[in-house]
Amino acid sequence: MDFFQYRDGQLYAEDVNLDTLADQLGTPLYVYSRKTFEDHYGRIAEAFAPLDPTLCYSIKSCGNINILKLLVARGAGMDVVSGGELRRAQAAGADMSKIVYAGVGKTDAEITAALEAGIGYFNIESEAEFENIARLAEQTGHTTHAALRVNPDVDPKTHTYTTTGKKESKFGVDLERARRFFESYGKNPHCRLTAVHIHIGSPVNDPQPYVDAINKVLALIDDLRAAGYTVDTLDIGGGFGAHYESDEAPPAVTYAERIVPLLKDRDLKVILEPGRSIAANAGVLLSRVQYIKTGGDKKFVIVDAGMNTLLRPSLYQAFHFLWPTKVDAKHVPEQRLKEMPNADLEPADVVGPICETGDFFAQHRALPPVKRGDLIAVFAAGAYGMVMASNYNAMPRPAEVLVDGDNATIIRHRETYEDLLAHELEPQSV
Amino acid sequence: MDFFQYRDGQLYAEDVNLDTLADQLGTPLYVYSRKTFEDHYGRIAEAFAPLDPTLCYSIKSCGNINILKLLVARGAGMDVVSGGELRRAQAAGADMSKIVYAGVGKTDAEITAALEAGIGYFNIESEAEFENIARLAEQTGHTTHAALRVNPDVDPKTHTYTTTGKKESKFGVDLERARRFFESYGKNPHCRLTAVHIHIGSPVNDPQPYVDAINKVLALIDDLRAAGYTVDTLDIGGGFGAHYESDEAPPAVTYAERIVPLLKDRDLKVILEPGRSIAANAGVLLSRVQYIKTGGDKKFVIVDAGMNTLLRPSLYQAFHFLWPTKVDAKHVPEQRLKEMPNADLEPADVVGPICETGDFFAQHRALPPVKRGDLIAVFAAGAYGMVMASNYNAMPRPAEVLVDGDNATIIRHRETYEDLLAHELEPQSV
Repeated sequence: MDFFQYRDGQLYAEDVNLDTLADQLGTPLYVYSRKTFEDHYGRIAEAFAPLDPTLCYSIKSCGNINILKLLVARGAGMDVVSGGELRRAQAAGADMSKIVYAGVGKTDAEITAALEAGIGYFNIESEAEFENIARLAEQTGHTTHAALRVNPDVDPKTHTYTTTGKKESKFGVDLERARRFFESYGKNPHCRLTAVHIHIGSPVNDPQPYVDAINKVLALIDDLRAAGYTVDTLDIGGGFGAHYESDEAPPAVTYAERIVPLLKDRDLKVILEPGRSIAANAGVLLSRVQYIKTGGDKKFVIVDAGMNTLLRPSLYQAFHFLWPTKVDAKHVPEQRLKEMPNADLEPADVVGPICETGDFFAQHRALPPVKRGDLIAVFAAGAYGMVMASNYNAMPRPAEVLVDGDNATIIRHRETYEDLLAHELEPQSV
Repeated sequence: MDFFQYRDGQLYAEDVNLDTLADQLGTPLYVYSRKTFEDHYGRIAEAFAPLDPTLCYSIKSCGNINILKLLVARGAGMDVVSGGELRRAQAAGADMSKIVYAGVGKTDAEITAALEAGIGYFNIESEAEFENIARLAEQTGHTTHAALRVNPDVDPKTHTYTTTGKKESKFGVDLERARRFFESYGKNPHCRLTAVHIHIGSPVNDPQPYVDAINKVLALIDDLRAAGYTVDTLDIGGGFGAHYESDEAPPAVTYAERIVPLLKDRDLKVILEPGRSIAANAGVLLSRVQYIKTGGDKKFVIVDAGMNTLLRPSLYQAFHFLWPTKVDAKHVPEQRLKEMPNADLEPADVVGPICETGDFFAQHRALPPVKRGDLIAVFAAGAYGMVMASNYNAMPRPAEVLVDGDNATIIRHRETYEDLLAHELEPQSV
């Protein structure tokens, strides 16, 4: 469910005509819908309300501070994975006690900044990291809290690159080691190990791996409590799916129906880390058709966004529904599907301007007629879109626009060639 | 052959101790060797000298303007693929008549800038693009030159994503269509189609596909000349290999020995577009070990660079030799190989700080002992390294340093958190 809809064959973001917007601001352009962000956040909050959880929005999915501010205003905490994301949370005015900080490679500078900010929890990925955080906390005179990240060894059946909860992962520790971990560090006075964290992967379109994972860590928590350790918090991570196809992911309530009963009466403070499920469908990427060409037996639609703008198709072979923003009545998409049920379409590869064959958004995709100058919307581009953009091929990164009703606001300005050169103009001898 | 060598177990770039440099400037850090850049450029120039070619360095491989300036000083032209790269070439003071401009998605603004700059050749990817360039040239009162990119349909046996000369590619036109292309546009007075361009992929570690491709286009050129068209230039593209492993790629002279005889007496001006073969081995990425951890049966070496810093391992499953910068005498690598011949090594995954399982530099790689605080050098990181870096996980991009003898110069300053936020701080209503 989102607020990008066709009216008389023209795509709108809420009440903003996207062709008009692209004419004004140029392409490529990321456009977000405020209402969609807030609606997705609200659905998760509502579905999990019986647990009174802390919702820590995953900044890595879509980290523009103007979007973070919207969620902070609704009470969101933040899931950060670096000092840079902590800085973003701070710039957005987030409540530091609702910050959880994950990531396998936290540096001393990053840890110290987080200690000084007074964040809620460090999600701990290894023994060495725990010892380092405890040492730095002691040195700097802070007391902090930590959640041990546990790999429950369930298979979320998502892309190998984004499967994170299996036993052989670089993340967290396995269940047996978790017990020993508490034995070693469960009484540390500087870094108080009072929570358990899991994150099994993303996107995970089935509640069952969550159920399996939570049951495994609840057994662990029972053991730990029986052994005299305080465990008052469980962070169940993120990874809920998004609609790359229509209705691909279960609604928040479907996850909640299975998860809430497991945790309702467990005397545990619950943390969730949704990111993709809030942001993905709240954004589209607009790109202008530059050329149509045929090569061999193929038709190529060449657009001005590429793997530099949106990396997911190249990196994960990810599916994104895409469609012209202006179409005949018969081509208004009722649903957004991998295979669109319409005989009157033509297969094409939609590719970017980057000098690599891997620079594609869609291969052999059935589309309505498109011509030079048309605008293509790549849907579900709100998460892991702009945050992964690069300047590859010396391409400036696009602007980001937030739509609110019939208002549109540039929330990140388009880069210029001068921006790209700025850091190189004054060489400095070491 | 490069100038990154161990002395008494310590890695140097030319005469600069890399541990000292990293201590001063922090990590991650890209370090380039001027002598290696110039040496690689010189070897290609020398090997192909009998053809008196124009060497157009491929900016997309490593585009720092301070490096471009070095090559411009040696007489290099530039291969650009965007308006941003044209801007870089201009900032480096390149001779515009030695610029070739490739890419399937050239925008009107980019084409106009290139016309005004007076570049040497547009490499033409499609009929629609030719018509657009000719139209813009006529409108703006310029006469320009074009090379038709032809797909010779040879298989360079490289990664699918970087294979670009096969028939079904988004690039160029096939041989039969090339003849029709000249019939349609070969007499255009605004955009003078007087050259043929090929680029079969990268890296290509065997001269044979070049020989096959050149023979095919020479036959085409003979046909075209017989039909009355002027074809005075052949651009044979780039794609020569680099030493990701020691001696993996043939030296320039091996390519030249096969290619020069084909072109020597053909009355053709020859253009080459080397990038990777010049830049790759001229740079290393330095990264600091943050933590050592075991997970399941695996050992993970967690460093502070990641897929945000160097994307090639994640995107292409590319091999990069990596090694600690400070080692015992017995661990000084004689060669850089996928499988190092030394019993006294331990397998490890070398992974970055990014919250994805796909964030790795090496998997199950035999390495000497490493501990927290050690420095790891990722070799052959000069090409398609920094140019593909992103701010994913809100990580600032690293500094770039150019070493010249015992001097080191910062040629791109490290990004700050403030840089990352700068474009978002002043939202603006549309």
